Amino acid sequence: MQKIAFVGLGHMGNPMADNLLKAGFEVKIYDVVAAAMQPLMDRGAIATKSIAEVVKEADFFITMLQTGTQVSDVCLGTNGLFAHAKKSSLYIDCSSIEVSISRSLHQEAENCGINMVDAPVSGGVAGAANGTLTFMVGGHEKNFIACRSLLEKMGKKIIHAGAPGSGQAAKICNNLILGISMIAVCEGFNLGKKLGLDPQKFFEISSNASGQCWSMTSYCPVPGLVENTPSNNNFQPGFMTKMMLKDLRLAQEAAKNVAANIPLGAEAAELFSLFATQGNSEVDFSGIIKMLEGNG
Amino acid sequence: MQKIAFVGLGHMGNPMADNLLKAGFEVKIYDVVAAAMQPLMDRGAIATKSIAEVVKEADFFITMLQTGTQVSDVCLGTNGLFAHAKKSSLYIDCSSIEVSISRSLHQEAENCGINMVDAPVSGGVAGAANGTLTFMVGGHEKNFIACRSLLEKMGKKIIHAGAPGSGQAAKICNNLILGISMIAVCEGFNLGKKLGLDPQKFFEISSNASGQCWSMTSYCPVPGLVENTPSNNNFQPGFMTKMMLKDLRLAQEAAKNVAANIPLGAEAAELFSLFATQGNSEVDFSGIIKMLEGNG
Amino acid sequence: MQKIAFVGLGHMGNPMADNLLKAGFEVKIYDVVAAAMQPLMDRGAIATKSIAEVVKEADFFITMLQTGTQVSDVCLGTNGLFAHAKKSSLYIDCSSIEVSISRSLHQEAENCGINMVDAPVSGGVAGAANGTLTFMVGGHEKNFIACRSLLEKMGKKIIHAGAPGSGQAAKICNNLILGISMIAVCEGFNLGKKLGLDPQKFFEISSNASGQCWSMTSYCPVPGLVENTPSNNNFQPGFMTKMMLKDLRLAQEAAKNVAANIPLGAEAAELFSLFATQGNSEVDFSGIIKMLEGNG
Amino acid sequence: MQKIAFVGLGHMGNPMADNLLKAGFEVKIYDVVAAAMQPLMDRGAIATKSIAEVVKEADFFITMLQTGTQVSDVCLGTNGLFAHAKKSSLYIDCSSIEVSISRSLHQEAENCGINMVDAPVSGGVAGAANGTLTFMVGGHEKNFIACRSLLEKMGKKIIHAGAPGSGQAAKICNNLILGISMIAVCEGFNLGKKLGLDPQKFFEISSNASGQCWSMTSYCPVPGLVENTPSNNNFQPGFMTKMMLKDLRLAQEAAKNVAANIPLGAEAAELFSLFATQGNSEVDFSGIIKMLEGNG
Repeated sequence: MQKIAFVGLGHMGNPMADNLLKAGFEVKIYDVVAAAMQPLMDRGAIATKSIAEVVKEADFFITMLQTGTQVSDVCLGTNGLFAHAKKSSLYIDCSSIEVSISRSLHQEAENCGINMVDAPVSGGVAGAANGTLTFMVGGHEKNFIACRSLLEKMGKKIIHAGAPGSGQAAKICNNLILGISMIAVCEGFNLGKKLGLDPQKFFEISSNASGQCWSMTSYCPVPGLVENTPSNNNFQPGFMTKMMLKDLRLAQEAAKNVAANIPLGAEAAELFSLFATQGNSEVDFSGIIKMLEGNG
Repeated sequence: MQKIAFVGLGHMGNPMADNLLKAGFEVKIYDVVAAAMQPLMDRGAIATKSIAEVVKEADFFITMLQTGTQVSDVCLGTNGLFAHAKKSSLYIDCSSIEVSISRSLHQEAENCGINMVDAPVSGGVAGAANGTLTFMVGGHEKNFIACRSLLEKMGKKIIHAGAPGSGQAAKICNNLILGISMIAVCEGFNLGKKLGLDPQKFFEISSNASGQCWSMTSYCPVPGLVENTPSNNNFQPGFMTKMMLKDLRLAQEAAKNVAANIPLGAEAAELFSLFATQGNSEVDFSGIIKMLEGNG
Repeated sequence: MQKIAFVGLGHMGNPMADNLLKAGFEVKIYDVVAAAMQPLMDRGAIATKSIAEVVKEADFFITMLQTGTQVSDVCLGTNGLFAHAKKSSLYIDCSSIEVSISRSLHQEAENCGINMVDAPVSGGVAGAANGTLTFMVGGHEKNFIACRSLLEKMGKKIIHAGAPGSGQAAKICNNLILGISMIAVCEGFNLGKKLGLDPQKFFEISSNASGQCWSMTSYCPVPGLVENTPSNNNFQPGFMTKMMLKDLRLAQEAAKNVAANIPLGAEAAELFSLFATQGNSEVDFSGIIKMLEGNG
Repeated sequence: MQKIAFVGLGHMGNPMADNLLKAGFEVKIYDVVAAAMQPLMDRGAIATKSIAEVVKEADFFITMLQTGTQVSDVCLGTNGLFAHAKKSSLYIDCSSIEVSISRSLHQEAENCGINMVDAPVSGGVAGAANGTLTFMVGGHEKNFIACRSLLEKMGKKIIHAGAPGSGQAAKICNNLILGISMIAVCEGFNLGKKLGLDPQKFFEISSNASGQCWSMTSYCPVPGLVENTPSNNNFQPGFMTKMMLKDLRLAQEAAKNVAANIPLGAEAAELFSLFATQGNSEVDFSGIIKMLEGNG
């Protein structure tokens, strides 16, 4: 049985590691917050006390952290994962981080004789718990193939996005479109309502016309039109505004580095930032309709 | 057989009136540009020399004009349609105009004992020629029912959007979402490409994920990914940038009147305006991807 | 002594007409709200009951209204000012309205043998009360000269901006810059503060550098840096957000008509609109700093 | 005589170091591009071959580099400036870099027993050549006092902005306002011109009214209104668009870190980015008026 190391056991990492345990893997775990490891220890995970200890015998090692700086800190340096991992082991970074940092880490991994994929996810905490995450994987095809069956224990759709860093790139480009189109849908429904349009009627029209988008037909910010959306539950819990803002900031960082123009992406980021600073950073991102309505 | 009057025989009005002739109606026509009437006269339409003459015996009278001011000018005053139309005739305004002006006209029509619907279309010149337009109809239900079979001669989907003015409202709210989401898709693909993502691969990922929208899956601005899009034909002919800009300006006008916030809609309008002033007003609106790429 | 008619006696019109009375003119007044005329009647103004009555003997007639539609309604038609004014009388429109409507009115006035200037003001209610308004005057030079001494009774700076409509154009272009630069100053101070900069120190630096602007040095949105600003008085009373929003909407209307690009103007309008819909439409426009700070 | 080390001898560093030579200092220099050192060697500077060599005897050492990463690379590590500098020497970083990186460097310097100020400049290549730069200095007051007379050899205004990092903060907040207000002025003049306003007349009005700002009165983007502006010289050379874009990106980075909202700053950055990608990255930033006019 393959040995797995898992670093970063927060809201996402915890249920993901749990799914690996359920699948029968030996899972060693590490988190700077020791308490975060307790629930998994109760389910059979082996807690460790250092980066060096968690990774030293692993065939696969996984990180699920918040920022590119955190991932770099954990991977690099004399106390880092790369310095203590086995040659030819495979590193899977599930964090959502800067494309540029991810590419640097791929290069460092190669220098250390370690295989790597970047594999950010979508699907949120619920997807992590249910094992229905989507993984967007960047890296050489052989590495993608080597980790696919492992990722299938934690997710439902495992997609090879391309060369190293492409998983990160695909995720931020998708979420760039998502963030903008969600605000577009909010603007359309809000304007329509103020003009006297029945939201249900407008939904019927636009969802069958050129305004159709996932933000409308799968995640409608107006309650009562689509089942199981955060808008039906007072915008709780869902995909938090601060997480959408994080992804849009990553898109801006990437756009800056490659001189790409994202004018609406920049403005969408500012609108989510404004919404967040008004006390809504943990509200579902579709809740921004409240700000547009003047009820934010 | 019901008698029809048709005013405004431009790129849209001409094929629409032609479809009514094909359906066997008696169609009287009027246009301030006399030459615009010639092609329809050859197909059996009866040209007239004044508003009064075109409308006086009509059961239905239709306008297809460019601006709200034009429609008002043609309808109102002692030489206008309303002054010369039969009582209880039905007026169908197919123009895309300000919601506020449309509602004023509904009121005036009622004062004159004339029934009215606002019925702006989507589908463009091709839809007009093929009789596949979508009509978004605003007005009392009895009026909607009364004109439906007539509209079916010119279109495929005839939708009742609600009370007077709702056809205009539904169209601009839909196109508000469309205009924003098209730029969103352009930003996503352009950023992705500069980050080294294969457009085909990104399309596969995002069209099955939360970035999906009609602008991507039915009208993709990147050539080679979706069949029969303007992007495959060098952004010709399609839905011209100036027409999208017109609809976004109508959305702004409406938003101003009802104090609705449309921040991305306002910025999208400015971006299409910038693209238009750089010589692209008659290019398909998805061509704005060229401006974002730096090739505008 | 010259006879003056004054139509529109709201917050601005009232003190303006009062200054004309103080200067010794015979002033006839009219307002659709009869009660609005009372304070001036007490000071010697002659109240009238119709447009026809107020204007019929006037050498100069002045309007101070809210919207272009109101001004058109008051001027045109068989009951309008132009139909009842003396030939060669001079019409001064002090309202802030659409350039396009103003130009139409100039044309109509000329057709009626009436001289006209557009003369929107800046300076607010306080300027109206103190007779320190600035008048930006559009119209033929002879008309400008003919009304200058009259305007000097109500204002301090009387500027000839150019041909008919130029007063309106100059005002909206100036206020376009003002609206944007005010938000710029708010963004700069708010960012600086969060970065630990002392606002006083930043003011000293930037007001002597390339960030200097009237919004900073004469109307600073941060309290305590410049005397006699609304920010020192909890953003009361000042230039209300809804008035700034009105001017930015006029700029958008004008920009649409002449195909000018005003991307930051459009976004500034949306930001003031957002601030207004959050309950701040009567707060001074510099109060938008509270929204940026997250305290809106 | 105090000994000075100067690292980074590009367009700015070269004339700055030259002014120190003229003032009689012993100046050792280092640049990774050896050829960049030649002009200064001809004027008496002592070229060195490594970071260690250039700094080891210096009382003051100065960097003038492009990016925060470059500055970090030069300062830190076993081959870095901090490892080889004398205890109690004073480090002056004149580069414009991220506030966050600058603050980290201040901390590292303190750890190494080195004094530091951040001292970014404004004034451009001409200011560097003429010794008329403005220095915005962040750091403890004793360090500010210790370096002031040295900076006066290269500049005219030496301002203490506050605690460590405050020089960077003051510069980006000022330039945030500058970048936005320049576009505001361009929008105002462009709209005015299209509305038929004489630019000279509008300048007279607005420069004496609430639209006044440095971008208008000292650096007007319309030629012929203010002397010695880049607009009078076909937008050459001036403050290049790419440099303004760099500063706005630094503002965005800072705003992200401290959760500040800069909606117009974000949009201004996108507009300069669009202008840059259309082939204008080395054009003066006021040249963006050409893009707004449709001639970009």
